[in-house]
Amino acid sequence: MPSIRKYTKDFGYSYSFGVFPTLELLTHRPEHVIKVVISPKGYKNHGIEEIQLLARKNHIEIEKSEGIVEKISGSENTYCFGIFKKFENHIEKNTQHVILVSPSDMGNLGTIMRTSLGFGYKDVVIIKPAADIFDPRTVRASMGSLFTIRFQYFSTFKDYQQQFPEQHLYSFMKDAKVSLEEASFEKPFSLIFGNESSGLSGEFRSVGTSIAIPQTKLVDSLNLSIAVGVGLFEAQRKAL
Amino acid sequence: MPSIRKYTKDFGYSYSFGVFPTLELLTHRPEHVIKVVISPKGYKNHGIEEIQLLARKNHIEIEKSEGIVEKISGSENTYCFGIFKKFENHIEKNTQHVILVSPSDMGNLGTIMRTSLGFGYKDVVIIKPAADIFDPRTVRASMGSLFTIRFQYFSTFKDYQQQFPEQHLYSFMKDAKVSLEEASFEKPFSLIFGNESSGLSGEFRSVGTSIAIPQTKLVDSLNLSIAVGVGLFEAQRKAL
Repeated sequence: MPSIRKYTKDFGYSYSFGVFPTLELLTHRPEHVIKVVISPKGYKNHGIEEIQLLARKNHIEIEKSEGIVEKISGSENTYCFGIFKKFENHIEKNTQHVILVSPSDMGNLGTIMRTSLGFGYKDVVIIKPAADIFDPRTVRASMGSLFTIRFQYFSTFKDYQQQFPEQHLYSFMKDAKVSLEEASFEKPFSLIFGNESSGLSGEFRSVGTSIAIPQTKLVDSLNLSIAVGVGLFEAQRKAL
Repeated sequence: MPSIRKYTKDFGYSYSFGVFPTLELLTHRPEHVIKVVISPKGYKNHGIEEIQLLARKNHIEIEKSEGIVEKISGSENTYCFGIFKKFENHIEKNTQHVILVSPSDMGNLGTIMRTSLGFGYKDVVIIKPAADIFDPRTVRASMGSLFTIRFQYFSTFKDYQQQFPEQHLYSFMKDAKVSLEEASFEKPFSLIFGNESSGLSGEFRSVGTSIAIPQTKLVDSLNLSIAVGVGLFEAQRKAL
């Protein structure tokens, strides 16, 4: 591989910054790891010891350099990062899907993967255009969940629908037919959420059941990752 | 006031970056606004027109400069910002309180204020040490909710408790007595959440009822703002 540079989207590889995401990478995707870089600052950190053990066990190169870790992560408080090859991934049938239509914020995308996994949703669908799932900011916000979940990009929602016709669809939008408090969910189901600024377009009102999360008029909307968190928790709790 | 510089915590004033937060500032706290700065880039934006109307109505100075907006906000996509004096605020009795013990991330703090307001909680308590509620990053993540909610800092949780002895307390922690699915909430209630990394300390297990949000073992924890979102929604839904 070339010398280590700041990430851009066209790279064939990316970085996992921080101890926890790097541990997740080494645990779940060791075959994709190119190298691990550790700062001497982190030698006393218990997680760093674990990272070194896992890297050795998997015959992964360990480089030691405070300068590179700080330069590439842009943070003085990062002790290590992994370099990993980007990988393909596919979602499964007959499970619950989280569908994000054109998410644009990398922090949200990562947080949503972490939340999905936390509530037992292992399949995340992303409809393009969308934020880069491999951007280090996404990886970090996901706390390494990216390495455990299954994800798949589709060019259009129709493409997804044709491939998974058996899913029950629930579209989350402000101007919806049913309130989340009254909604019921039938498995296997897909929960659909729109873009941070624009939400889901009007045509989704007739895609399955449209659901609104009750909220006061004191805010314009909820943050996307909060809406997803509440929607995922409630759907799982109520599902038939 | 002095020349416009990048924000630091010791300033007596702060900035609201972006159209929506600045509109919220002018609508709810006009008496605290020192000045509004607008970039000519935003002249076609409908919100910018509204900002100019509100500023004129309240006799607030409007400065026009693309350079200052970009320099101070650090973003090319910001059209304006307000400069406002920091203000004191107090929470009310006999309402539902959201209590954050030592939140450290400004994005989370802002998102939690927005979520609180969205779910009808108007009183937010912050136990020190804590992130700066007036930092422009907090203000931005709050989408201006900071200008509508009531908030109050306390040095210790005990100080809060002594002042509001009539509140029913619910402490959210992983190692808790009751699952959120089984919990019930009695008004007036206070929902207590810990720091992003460390959560609530063990002593909170005996502070009111401790509650756990059910989650898989596939993640270490939920993001704080997600846990707060789910907790606030459920408590409001179930409250007696």
